[in-house]
Amino acid sequence: MTLTTDFGTRDPYVASMKGVILTLAPRVTLVDITHEIPPQDIREGMRAIHEAHRYFPSETIHIVVVDPGVGSARRILCVSTDQGMFLAPDNGVLTGILEEFSSPKIVVVERDDLCLPTVSATFHGRDIFAPIAAHLALGLDPNDLGPPTKTPTLLPRRAPIVDVLAGRIRGEIVHIDHFGNLITNITLSQVEVLQGDLRVAVESNVESHPVPIQSTYSDFPPGELGALLESTGHLEIAIHGGSAAATLGVSVGAPVEVESRPGTDEK
Amino acid sequence: MTLTTDFGTRDPYVASMKGVILTLAPRVTLVDITHEIPPQDIREGMRAIHEAHRYFPSETIHIVVVDPGVGSARRILCVSTDQGMFLAPDNGVLTGILEEFSSPKIVVVERDDLCLPTVSATFHGRDIFAPIAAHLALGLDPNDLGPPTKTPTLLPRRAPIVDVLAGRIRGEIVHIDHFGNLITNITLSQVEVLQGDLRVAVESNVESHPVPIQSTYSDFPPGELGALLESTGHLEIAIHGGSAAATLGVSVGAPVEVESRPGTDEK
Amino acid sequence: MTLTTDFGTRDPYVASMKGVILTLAPRVTLVDITHEIPPQDIREGMRAIHEAHRYFPSETIHIVVVDPGVGSARRILCVSTDQGMFLAPDNGVLTGILEEFSSPKIVVVERDDLCLPTVSATFHGRDIFAPIAAHLALGLDPNDLGPPTKTPTLLPRRAPIVDVLAGRIRGEIVHIDHFGNLITNITLSQVEVLQGDLRVAVESNVESHPVPIQSTYSDFPPGELGALLESTGHLEIAIHGGSAAATLGVSVGAPVEVESRPGTDEK
Repeated sequence: MTLTTDFGTRDPYVASMKGVILTLAPRVTLVDITHEIPPQDIREGMRAIHEAHRYFPSETIHIVVVDPGVGSARRILCVSTDQGMFLAPDNGVLTGILEEFSSPKIVVVERDDLCLPTVSATFHGRDIFAPIAAHLALGLDPNDLGPPTKTPTLLPRRAPIVDVLAGRIRGEIVHIDHFGNLITNITLSQVEVLQGDLRVAVESNVESHPVPIQSTYSDFPPGELGALLESTGHLEIAIHGGSAAATLGVSVGAPVEVESRPGTDEK
Repeated sequence: MTLTTDFGTRDPYVASMKGVILTLAPRVTLVDITHEIPPQDIREGMRAIHEAHRYFPSETIHIVVVDPGVGSARRILCVSTDQGMFLAPDNGVLTGILEEFSSPKIVVVERDDLCLPTVSATFHGRDIFAPIAAHLALGLDPNDLGPPTKTPTLLPRRAPIVDVLAGRIRGEIVHIDHFGNLITNITLSQVEVLQGDLRVAVESNVESHPVPIQSTYSDFPPGELGALLESTGHLEIAIHGGSAAATLGVSVGAPVEVESRPGTDEK
Repeated sequence: MTLTTDFGTRDPYVASMKGVILTLAPRVTLVDITHEIPPQDIREGMRAIHEAHRYFPSETIHIVVVDPGVGSARRILCVSTDQGMFLAPDNGVLTGILEEFSSPKIVVVERDDLCLPTVSATFHGRDIFAPIAAHLALGLDPNDLGPPTKTPTLLPRRAPIVDVLAGRIRGEIVHIDHFGNLITNITLSQVEVLQGDLRVAVESNVESHPVPIQSTYSDFPPGELGALLESTGHLEIAIHGGSAAATLGVSVGAPVEVESRPGTDEK
């Protein structure tokens, strides 16, 4: 079972969830995906679980609690796929999962009888998600959680614009990691469509920074910017031994452009 | 078994404790409550274990190491309750636990023979607490740890002042969580004693900020302050989608007042 | 099995490694040493695993991924000792381990067939280290990983200079912990060689700060500096209830001098 939240690790919130789970299902193996999703940042929560879930056993139950609507009438969903079961508020945090699997089974969780005796208005992670997940781990059929639904909330996509004729892809930075590496929404397969030598540029407020494409960090001269295809198959901009985010002064949302230089191929 | 410390997670201190425990008792399930108690902050350590312990199985052994007196003659206590066993320095960090249970069994730990061969002056968590807890997990009777005591150290209470005649409760902020929510020492049952519509005010250095009482975060207009009864039964002041602590510029210890407005009820 | 990395806990990098391990070897117990090694800081990684490994069961597999050369031709080593097995890039991060054990068995890992089907250029922790470690946990003989080597990369030592005739040791601060305690590279046995009363001084940019030697934190008057032998056997400079690093304004690398005052002994 995994946990992905925006709770941080300073307060005993995550531990309370684990206590509830282990009280009901003492044999469960618990793994933290992360608890450092920025508060209420549904899109970052979506990214984290979408990236991590594929490395876990297919019988894993993933709890995702990034839940700005806690206590309101927002639904709670249980999504069953070939690659794990997902329990999350119906706010789009499972968008990546829902788009990846062709026909996931989705049910709305409506089992007050399985929750903690008193459900608080502010902490459904502990009072609802944890006990429901424990019951699933003990073998509860997700179909017994509530009625099926075909209308989960999805976040609007932010896909890059690929202009093959002009030899150009315009995307953006979607994540900045612990190392200051800039992860874009431009995929390997999109880059491969372009012909000729490629040129990557990150635009900060006033300038455009050209970045050569390399195959590993070690190909970058120390302290120099480079772009490469990173471990989830997206174009990444990094600095060998440094923070690209700090050097370029950019943040999530900054435009990134890949452009082919057709002249090069013909020479 | 759970661990609550002020060690942080950057140094290998917590891992060393876990290594000692798993060497002696390899089948133990370890859960971190938190390691981000502010250094030497006994009161925050007390809050964390008191809040979290109730969600764990009743046979759980809880190690709490917030220990400014490490290496001195301060005692180490083992407290046995219906809701878990607690191993901690005798400095008040178990005050909440000791006050909650009517007749906990308390013994002073005096078993050098169960500690690591060399006990350092600075790291009893690893050299004493971890091996003692492992032996308890393996079935050691806590009565075999040392003599009973009736005089554990207790922290002075900081209870709010409830003035029913004046229709007023004066408490304070006792904790600011990861989201910037302000947790007070005013409980639900104290608030229920007051009549009429209620008015909450947080006092920062120069101003008093009125705060409406809501039932969930979602009832707050985005960006607006509200008060609600949070997940441990205390009055909490929050901002929907923001940090109340940052907005109000307040810190732990700031006064909070709940006042009834008797006129309202009679209209 | 333990994990030591510079990945942080915000991104799902560590969780992805754990997912890969648990998919192959579901019964493994995973313990985090730390994921907060400063990015690419091989020396800090070396310190962490060297300090922590001795507290773990001797059959533990330790994965250490502080790997600025990821994706390059740098080798990956598996080192087998009486006190655990270590899997790490061949960049010196195992220096402490390699120097501690007299004849560790060292092999170069060359088993592409055991890695994830696609090995990325940027995340060998997940694609190589995690599956190799899982196979070791399942009983794979390390000799089957690849050819032996006698030439692992070692970091140059930064040993203190002990001048017995002058009654002086000159070392340096090698680590500043979560509490702001200053850990030096001067050992207990080196200090014991000196005669008479001892005097410790930390040099910041312009001044030398004298520090008395105490036996526990509690012997320090509150708010005062003191030196003591800390839990790994090194001289440590601390402040009772405060941060020595902040008070002295020093960082890793600052010189520390222990000097005997021979006059004192003769009185």
